[in-house]
Amino acid sequence: MPRSLSVTSSPVRDLLALTARPEVISFAGGLPAPELFDLDGLRAAFDQALSRRALQYAPTEGDPDLRALVAARMTARGLPTDAADLLITTGSQQALSLVVTALLEPGAVVAVEEPTYLAALQCFQLAGARVVPVAGDEHGVDPAALAEVVQRHRPELLYLVPTFANPTGRTLAEARRAEVARLAERHGLWVVEDDPYSELRYRGTPVAPLAASSERVLHLGSFSKVGAPGLRLGWLRAPATLLRTLVVVKQAADLHTSATDQAAAAAYLAANDLSAHVERLCAAYRARRDAMIEALPSALPEGARWTDPDGGMFVWVRLPGEVDTQALLPKALARDVAFVPGAPFHAVNPDRATLRLSFTTNTVQDIAEGVRRLGLALS
Amino acid sequence: MPRSLSVTSSPVRDLLALTARPEVISFAGGLPAPELFDLDGLRAAFDQALSRRALQYAPTEGDPDLRALVAARMTARGLPTDAADLLITTGSQQALSLVVTALLEPGAVVAVEEPTYLAALQCFQLAGARVVPVAGDEHGVDPAALAEVVQRHRPELLYLVPTFANPTGRTLAEARRAEVARLAERHGLWVVEDDPYSELRYRGTPVAPLAASSERVLHLGSFSKVGAPGLRLGWLRAPATLLRTLVVVKQAADLHTSATDQAAAAAYLAANDLSAHVERLCAAYRARRDAMIEALPSALPEGARWTDPDGGMFVWVRLPGEVDTQALLPKALARDVAFVPGAPFHAVNPDRATLRLSFTTNTVQDIAEGVRRLGLALS
Repeated sequence: MPRSLSVTSSPVRDLLALTARPEVISFAGGLPAPELFDLDGLRAAFDQALSRRALQYAPTEGDPDLRALVAARMTARGLPTDAADLLITTGSQQALSLVVTALLEPGAVVAVEEPTYLAALQCFQLAGARVVPVAGDEHGVDPAALAEVVQRHRPELLYLVPTFANPTGRTLAEARRAEVARLAERHGLWVVEDDPYSELRYRGTPVAPLAASSERVLHLGSFSKVGAPGLRLGWLRAPATLLRTLVVVKQAADLHTSATDQAAAAAYLAANDLSAHVERLCAAYRARRDAMIEALPSALPEGARWTDPDGGMFVWVRLPGEVDTQALLPKALARDVAFVPGAPFHAVNPDRATLRLSFTTNTVQDIAEGVRRLGLALS
Repeated sequence: MPRSLSVTSSPVRDLLALTARPEVISFAGGLPAPELFDLDGLRAAFDQALSRRALQYAPTEGDPDLRALVAARMTARGLPTDAADLLITTGSQQALSLVVTALLEPGAVVAVEEPTYLAALQCFQLAGARVVPVAGDEHGVDPAALAEVVQRHRPELLYLVPTFANPTGRTLAEARRAEVARLAERHGLWVVEDDPYSELRYRGTPVAPLAASSERVLHLGSFSKVGAPGLRLGWLRAPATLLRTLVVVKQAADLHTSATDQAAAAAYLAANDLSAHVERLCAAYRARRDAMIEALPSALPEGARWTDPDGGMFVWVRLPGEVDTQALLPKALARDVAFVPGAPFHAVNPDRATLRLSFTTNTVQDIAEGVRRLGLALS
């Protein structure tokens, strides 16, 4: 795809370079809090896992122990899964990239929420796909709007982050999940359920994964938000026929994911209660979320609106009037606070008055101070 | 590329499953010898490298320390390289896959040696490229034949394993390297120099890398044969303009390669003399190579021919007459010995009388015994 010669790097990743000054309170990243990584547990897991087998070439499908442990965990969380249903990937970003390679040819149509995850949009763009947005609201994509898009544009794929979405923090409502699954079944549409955040729930009751309702849903999971992203460990749950194709595509992409990291993750899962660790993450992130939601009203200008997420990592803000948050960013950086402008998260119709705030990597004190600085920059 | 729905898995990887019986002496794999991995050194490196930084998201380009260490090593080996010239990849397989994504669109032409590396052919096939073989001999591709292919088929890319090729073990002669580089410059052809084996030299003097002669050569390196393949660490050296595109393509593919494994590799390279470790590998592999070359004459039928490689992992055999080595494989397995039939290494004109033998993973005693069994199976 020599089209790629004109594509640009992610604005979020470029921005991270600008926010590296220690005095900046950054709400820009989408990073988990490093001080919450279970460094000792992971160190012990690597020490235990390092063996001649873990250093050798390994099956493309993934480490058998890791597949079994992930499958058991998914089953326990409400999505019945066998080890054989899973492909271990180099982060869930790779899972998405493999699905795109396997299912889309140039000119294919992909339906997405708007706004949606930036690196997914880049992936579709690189594949030469045409992205069509589906209207939605605080309960996620609107099934009626989706039905119309399906009728009119015949997408091959619908991409969703149904639970605690990036960038909005929104969750697709239970009733809508059933409708999305029905539409997928009826029209032979593939749905990607990108699910890195659902374990990070701070209130309310869990919603069943979309993949529990239909075989047309490809479920993408990740160790990045509940374990550590540096390991680049994700997984993909797909029906057997498609999985076989995806394994071949993965073989061409990188032969297999690091056998060392997979063995360490398996050792970690066998020796530790990851769910207990996730509870500790949730306790810390809940306080940070609350601190941000508490600070926003007095800081943001009259008429601003923002999401009030039940989980995940992000609050999505819309400022009043015709402002462009990209133009406001230098002012914010001058006040030593950073955010991500919202425009690049839109595939088609950028709403330039939006911005994304992440609450995961700062203390509650810094969140209060950072939101105060943001208020000054916006005033 | 819904074409992929019809592609098949690698015959080599499928074969490995059949050769897992402990009584089989397998010459089928392309694996490094696990007993030679520096397990203690790598364990210490992981222990030292594990940190919150090594568990966090990281730059797409790769770990700065690792890039600097790899660049210094390449420079010392005759290919002047800056850290900024390098992209760290999830094995060199990913480097190839990124190059293919960045440079080829469906229908593009790729020129290759015939036979050549199987997983490269799969990669070109998945991209919908048309593969055109270039004739060669024991000194590698023939520049006159390449000139003709360039004239006639206008390939975008020439793919070569110029030093100790997979599957033949052959090395592109010094004089021919200059001619290939000249052709690349003159015709704006990109050349991929896939170079995982060149450090594994058992006799003779090193040949300068192809990339030393031209900016049109993309050099792919790997930790898999000199370190450990389980880590999936490779790298790509490319001119700045193309490297920027490749970074964007990699970002969509997997964001970045395992930060943990990269930090461990950097710690390993800083604390150990990898070249001394490679010398130990060479001493062991040289003896294994010699054992195979010594055993073949009395085992193979009259009229068989084979390569006599100066390095690498493979001997390439051609049996006399109209035999099909795929059909001979069950006979060999019945004798508890395995090889890879040669046909799949050919993009266009399969020579079914060929087979590949790897000498790296067996002791000299087992090599003698395995070749004896092979002789019985072929007789």
